[in-house]
Amino acid sequence: MTQHPSHAFDKAIALTPTGQGEGHYLGATSPDYWNMVGPFGGVTAAIVVQAVLCHPRLLGVPIAITVNYAAAMVAGPFEVRVIEVRTNRSTQHWTVQIAQPDPHGAPQINTTATLVTATRRDTWSENDVPMPAVPRPETLQSLVTGPKGVDWLRRYEMRAVSGAVPTVWDGSGTHSETVLWLRDSALRPVDFPALMAMSDMFYPRVWLRRAKYVPAGTVSITTYFHVGKAELAQVGAGYLLGRAQGQSFYNGFFDQTAQLWADGGQLLATSNQIVYFKE
Amino acid sequence: MTQHPSHAFDKAIALTPTGQGEGHYLGATSPDYWNMVGPFGGVTAAIVVQAVLCHPRLLGVPIAITVNYAAAMVAGPFEVRVIEVRTNRSTQHWTVQIAQPDPHGAPQINTTATLVTATRRDTWSENDVPMPAVPRPETLQSLVTGPKGVDWLRRYEMRAVSGAVPTVWDGSGTHSETVLWLRDSALRPVDFPALMAMSDMFYPRVWLRRAKYVPAGTVSITTYFHVGKAELAQVGAGYLLGRAQGQSFYNGFFDQTAQLWADGGQLLATSNQIVYFKE
Repeated sequence: MTQHPSHAFDKAIALTPTGQGEGHYLGATSPDYWNMVGPFGGVTAAIVVQAVLCHPRLLGVPIAITVNYAAAMVAGPFEVRVIEVRTNRSTQHWTVQIAQPDPHGAPQINTTATLVTATRRDTWSENDVPMPAVPRPETLQSLVTGPKGVDWLRRYEMRAVSGAVPTVWDGSGTHSETVLWLRDSALRPVDFPALMAMSDMFYPRVWLRRAKYVPAGTVSITTYFHVGKAELAQVGAGYLLGRAQGQSFYNGFFDQTAQLWADGGQLLATSNQIVYFKE
Repeated sequence: MTQHPSHAFDKAIALTPTGQGEGHYLGATSPDYWNMVGPFGGVTAAIVVQAVLCHPRLLGVPIAITVNYAAAMVAGPFEVRVIEVRTNRSTQHWTVQIAQPDPHGAPQINTTATLVTATRRDTWSENDVPMPAVPRPETLQSLVTGPKGVDWLRRYEMRAVSGAVPTVWDGSGTHSETVLWLRDSALRPVDFPALMAMSDMFYPRVWLRRAKYVPAGTVSITTYFHVGKAELAQVGAGYLLGRAQGQSFYNGFFDQTAQLWADGGQLLATSNQIVYFKE
């Protein structure tokens, strides 16, 4: 499935069949997409999408995916297992697990996921969440890259319209909404794995809401795709507009909802995640 | 776990250990919650929550659940299998499957699910999606019940503030938002399984958006809970305010996002689903 083998993202999501059965793949974590204590979760989710796209019995395109981060991945090889649970006339249901060996070599599951794929049919279509009117990306500053070691941030170009990461952590936050333009730093046409990763692009809403830095990490993300393969190809390597907002922050967990539009206004993906936070 | 054994909802989600291993349960579909071609999906999702609540090694409360409707359930008995994938210090990851025998007696999976449960800790909390100011339920008409055979609708009292099911299917729809008060017709304190079912309460947004009746069915639902056990107990059997809206309708699938507030304004649950539709 890999189309741009020299791109860091394609290396990060590259999978090789183990030879131990259909839907069994091997991969390795990428230092290029490293986050603070493990790989960028968006790339882990992209690996799940890629694993299903590699499956020989796939019929359609991804519609819905949920990825649960059960434990941190460590640097090194991992194994992906894709199970085709049910194939109907036009939809397929998949479960996916990622595992890494524990200190004794036994596989430990660190990621669980479910995916729905389907063959798309032409129907009436409508976007009920229009893209906001915002300044063009060229008129906006590119966000400063994050702290040393958080390499995945360097893989993306983000230009904030509003709600950039606070520069002063003084507890003065009043809202949780970010709007930004984004694309790969090294241009690469957006495909489903890339769209999946980009739907996890938004920093924890609790930082913005509180203007306070607290430890936070995604526990589960669900992304819905609203685009076919041909329309996604038309997006190319152009900017996407992203919007994210928190809903409820409550006793250790908050959720954030996100939308990603193509520059032309098509709502390509909607996403939600629940995030652990401390204090 | 069943607290109100005489209530139709408790009967619908009642599970019995099979004796064939931890996390294996038997249940049966309920005619009381029948939808057009199978059980109301909200009750199926509630059964998933109930199965995890029954598990002897559960530590906390439900935080996030995704349920995928892989195939229609038929009237009759079903088997639920709960697998504890990973237990960390304060979070647990579960997968759940529901199966029914095929004509030859072999179990066929019709539902897959993942759940995250966690022990809640007191932290800073904030609701970034305030409950809209709306008229009190007593001042609003109760929605007419649905077509014959769709019995689950009779189990709930819904009073629409706006966006009731169209009464004229003339293609005149202009938006996809419904706001309504809801509670059980036969009063029952809201618990996690009930909250799960209620998060799937909203009729397909495509009907409202188009003012056109087209076949539609939920493919996958994800609900996040933003409440602990003690706070939920305080909600009792009171009205919840619900809001739902479509985001993207595109070539055979649309998504709808929903919020459920306690009468006092606490955002109890946020939910998203992706729905198949025809034409």
